[in-house]
Amino acid sequence: MRLFLLALILTLLLPKTGWTSNADSLKYINATNFELIGKGFTDTENIYDRLPASLNGKTRPPVWSLSKNCSGLAIRFRTNSTIIAAKWEVTGDVVMNHFAPTGIKGLDLYCLKNGKWQFVNSARPSGKTTTTTIINHMPGNDMEYMLYLPLYDGLASLEIGVKSTATIGNSTIDSPRKAKPVVFYGTSITQGGCASRAGMAYPNQLSRMLDRQIVNLGFSGNGQLDLEIAEVMADIDASCFVMDCLPNVTVAQMNEKYVRFLEIIRKKRPDVPILLVETILFPHMYFDQTVFALLREKNEVLKKIYTDHKKNDRHMYYMKGEKLIGNDFEATVDGVHLTDLGFIRMSENLYPVIRKMIK
Amino acid sequence: MRLFLLALILTLLLPKTGWTSNADSLKYINATNFELIGKGFTDTENIYDRLPASLNGKTRPPVWSLSKNCSGLAIRFRTNSTIIAAKWEVTGDVVMNHFAPTGIKGLDLYCLKNGKWQFVNSARPSGKTTTTTIINHMPGNDMEYMLYLPLYDGLASLEIGVKSTATIGNSTIDSPRKAKPVVFYGTSITQGGCASRAGMAYPNQLSRMLDRQIVNLGFSGNGQLDLEIAEVMADIDASCFVMDCLPNVTVAQMNEKYVRFLEIIRKKRPDVPILLVETILFPHMYFDQTVFALLREKNEVLKKIYTDHKKNDRHMYYMKGEKLIGNDFEATVDGVHLTDLGFIRMSENLYPVIRKMIK
Repeated sequence: MRLFLLALILTLLLPKTGWTSNADSLKYINATNFELIGKGFTDTENIYDRLPASLNGKTRPPVWSLSKNCSGLAIRFRTNSTIIAAKWEVTGDVVMNHFAPTGIKGLDLYCLKNGKWQFVNSARPSGKTTTTTIINHMPGNDMEYMLYLPLYDGLASLEIGVKSTATIGNSTIDSPRKAKPVVFYGTSITQGGCASRAGMAYPNQLSRMLDRQIVNLGFSGNGQLDLEIAEVMADIDASCFVMDCLPNVTVAQMNEKYVRFLEIIRKKRPDVPILLVETILFPHMYFDQTVFALLREKNEVLKKIYTDHKKNDRHMYYMKGEKLIGNDFEATVDGVHLTDLGFIRMSENLYPVIRKMIK
Repeated sequence: MRLFLLALILTLLLPKTGWTSNADSLKYINATNFELIGKGFTDTENIYDRLPASLNGKTRPPVWSLSKNCSGLAIRFRTNSTIIAAKWEVTGDVVMNHFAPTGIKGLDLYCLKNGKWQFVNSARPSGKTTTTTIINHMPGNDMEYMLYLPLYDGLASLEIGVKSTATIGNSTIDSPRKAKPVVFYGTSITQGGCASRAGMAYPNQLSRMLDRQIVNLGFSGNGQLDLEIAEVMADIDASCFVMDCLPNVTVAQMNEKYVRFLEIIRKKRPDVPILLVETILFPHMYFDQTVFALLREKNEVLKKIYTDHKKNDRHMYYMKGEKLIGNDFEATVDGVHLTDLGFIRMSENLYPVIRKMIK
């Protein structure tokens, strides 16, 4: 009877201590117990948000709503478990017709192996809530892991599952958190549309390549130079800023706000390198003459902004859009959004430029 | 009144002639009016099927069901329209959690430009039925097009929309139909999982690279060496056969049926080159020791089959799995299925081998 009571008490207590044991002998630990990397701001409404709470009601509703998507965020932990699982609930259960659910609302696990971050496996989402094994039958060495969060959905909760007999705790190695983060401002492409899984979004790839934390401020369809975003970006003690918003802005918006956006950042961060990125050349523009003319015009306007601004700002850098995604026209799913193929090319092309900027 | 009657009669007649005009002044023409390429068999139940009707009830139900998916099929046409649209109905409205709907059930348009097939744009599916513009604002030159059909769904109907004033007709150029087709037998990967759009599945990429028609006999999860498939494959007057089924077969199945499968083909096609492809090395096998051991074993068994068979068959070729998808572990969405990144690497690695085989 005393044993029964003890078991009952333990059963009642266990969920409150943050882990439970299931039939497969896994224990699930709330991810909030581990370090979350990629956050630009600490004063957010919810832990997995991307913008400070102060912008609620101040920035446009779609920007605010998209700031609840977890793009760029990742959990860092270490474990000697032979199996790693995850249990998570998304807030939107978002579905898109050109985007794999793994990228929209799945998780993506990497492991630090021989000093490099190596893909382990992705967690495929079932719907609003998912419980699934990410990897099994590992040797059980104590290793460092990084679990990327959903690119295009929010997280209501996340638990990481490991063998009930395994150890799991915070990472003890600084990668990829050395020094100051790289901050990306931009569009759906910046947010990661349409990577097959979160680790393939170009800011996340660059985070691994540069061994730096990144902050993803890509807002699908809404990288429209909202000045309050510049204000909060300037609060981040960044190693550099990457401006990749051109596909979302009109030429009128560029003329009205691009320089003001830069000036807001410059007021607080006069010496931090800023990279202005041209719009990629959408492959379908070689057939759609209207798109062709528009993209060319935007890039010309940006080039002029850069040339003018550069005269009084030696920390300004420029990236042409021409070769960013290769020249075989195959890098997109829909003429606009990048596949993993486009993202790897974009990362490889941006890497040497950003590495030089942050040295 | 006579005009009204004439209009009424025309309205009633138009759908029967195969095209209708909508508010955007588009006419929609049933795709059955144009040449369908990539079909291995003419005697199919429905036009967009991949296996002959004779196999209904003879092959396993999942194989039969998957043969209704359109992977590898494409419509060839030419038009001088400034806009191209599509209206299609899929049979399954398939949803998968690691696969973009554009790849599962969308369409993918290419244009022959300067002698090369160039991506125009994809048609993003809305659900069971979709009407959408693929490309707009084109100069209106008379050009050759190829529209890839869904990789993982069937087609109940397909109409191609062009300007009501434009001409549209059958292609007048032989690409990619020169000489005999390349026939692929295999798995979900062969069928195109998980390309972002149909044109990126590796057999379709190879079709463009080789300028050859291909026949896709990839059956998701079911490339299990069913001997009746070998029987019908042997009926195809192929330039070569590519055996890429290893991820779907057990070692026991390989030992029982691989050689018999080859012998069935050889009986009718003694001199046609056959390429045996090892399984790609799933990136997650570098963590999952069980998968690692299994894949290594399958490739060893295949190597032995090849070595034994090669002695009496000089038209047998072999492709190692090691470098097929690169060595950065980034080419899959879930450790198994290829993204466009994996598919382009696989195509580039298979291309020189197959080109040599079919010369």
